[in-house]
Amino acid sequence: MSKLYLYYDMLSQPSRTLYTFLKVTGIPFVPCKTVIINGDNKTQEFAKINPRKKLPAFKDGDFCLSESVAIFRYIAEKYQHKIADHWYPRDLKKRARVDEYLEYQHNGTRLHYSYLFQYEAMPMMTGETPDKKQTEKLELNMKKITHIVQKTFLGDQRYLCGDQISIADIFAAHEILQIAMVGYEPLEGFPKMSVWLERVSQELNPPFVETIEELYSVAGKEVPQKYQRMP
Amino acid sequence: MSKLYLYYDMLSQPSRTLYTFLKVTGIPFVPCKTVIINGDNKTQEFAKINPRKKLPAFKDGDFCLSESVAIFRYIAEKYQHKIADHWYPRDLKKRARVDEYLEYQHNGTRLHYSYLFQYEAMPMMTGETPDKKQTEKLELNMKKITHIVQKTFLGDQRYLCGDQISIADIFAAHEILQIAMVGYEPLEGFPKMSVWLERVSQELNPPFVETIEELYSVAGKEVPQKYQRMP
Repeated sequence: MSKLYLYYDMLSQPSRTLYTFLKVTGIPFVPCKTVIINGDNKTQEFAKINPRKKLPAFKDGDFCLSESVAIFRYIAEKYQHKIADHWYPRDLKKRARVDEYLEYQHNGTRLHYSYLFQYEAMPMMTGETPDKKQTEKLELNMKKITHIVQKTFLGDQRYLCGDQISIADIFAAHEILQIAMVGYEPLEGFPKMSVWLERVSQELNPPFVETIEELYSVAGKEVPQKYQRMP
Repeated sequence: MSKLYLYYDMLSQPSRTLYTFLKVTGIPFVPCKTVIINGDNKTQEFAKINPRKKLPAFKDGDFCLSESVAIFRYIAEKYQHKIADHWYPRDLKKRARVDEYLEYQHNGTRLHYSYLFQYEAMPMMTGETPDKKQTEKLELNMKKITHIVQKTFLGDQRYLCGDQISIADIFAAHEILQIAMVGYEPLEGFPKMSVWLERVSQELNPPFVETIEELYSVAGKEVPQKYQRMP
């Protein structure tokens, strides 16, 4: 079987998701660190992997692919007999529930957490100070989205799409944690979601901590005890 | 087999996509017109179908589902032996190409065409006149995205994901056509994409014209000849 190459930056949410998934399922791959702030993804060389110059990107033999969810589906199909069913259930209705979150997240969780993150990360890039009113608006949108996820996906289940962990939980956890990098306490005020995130981190360790170390290090912090593996 | 119910509004891009797909593949369904400007999607009754109160939504027996791409995948899997393979190829790499566009579109084509559409549609809802500078910025973003789709997806192929039509073409066509409703000529300045859209409309007729009639009628126009079926 040809080798899988994952092009990633640990500061990119969907990059961390695929890295975590491959590690936790034990699928062998070649990790290709591609540093966004160094412009590694803007080179001519990288454009051969992904002409849209975004991360994560993926190569299997000479087949190149972009878009994290599409990459996940490709891997899940190719390695279906090697990974536990709960990551992406083959049952039609159970899978549809996971697909529903994977599609929702783009303009839900991902969009609104990213907006706040990018706006707050501005001073690191441009030196411009974020406007307080705009920050409040983006925070409010982030909270609305978290409320929707808590109420209409998680509900009283253990995980977002049922009582077993799925790829949806990995995508959501990494997206939500991104704002820790700009000083927010993720999921403050959302007790069910907070418990869910600790549960997910336990299920995904040790790779989960490995993928978020750089995030916390940029924020000048250690990975909180609650996301470390329980003794 | 239980009956499929599609909740749709013809003025919603992904609603039109699923409606077109079901019609063109001949999968029987119960069309449930749900009018957004009447608030039909905001009722307690509708929240039982989709707690996030968005369209399109879907019901198969007592199984409710939201998110157009997830709904499409559910139908494509359930009816895999009844629909032609090219709509969503079973070949791993061909399917990954379609998935790549389906994931890309959320924050690509869909987001940027929607931004422009919503901003220009403002006067219909609020009476506020759009700001010229903001319009220009949104137009520029829409064109950048169209350029990316033309260059990195369509290229010299007949369709976005290869030489046969797929669900990706239906999603893209309906998204792009949305701006006709606020007076834009879709794909002006993008000759390859314009030819592609005419080709797609031919493949999808007669349901394609049926789904866009209301769009053009709101704009006070007839569906252009080029999107009608060739004699």
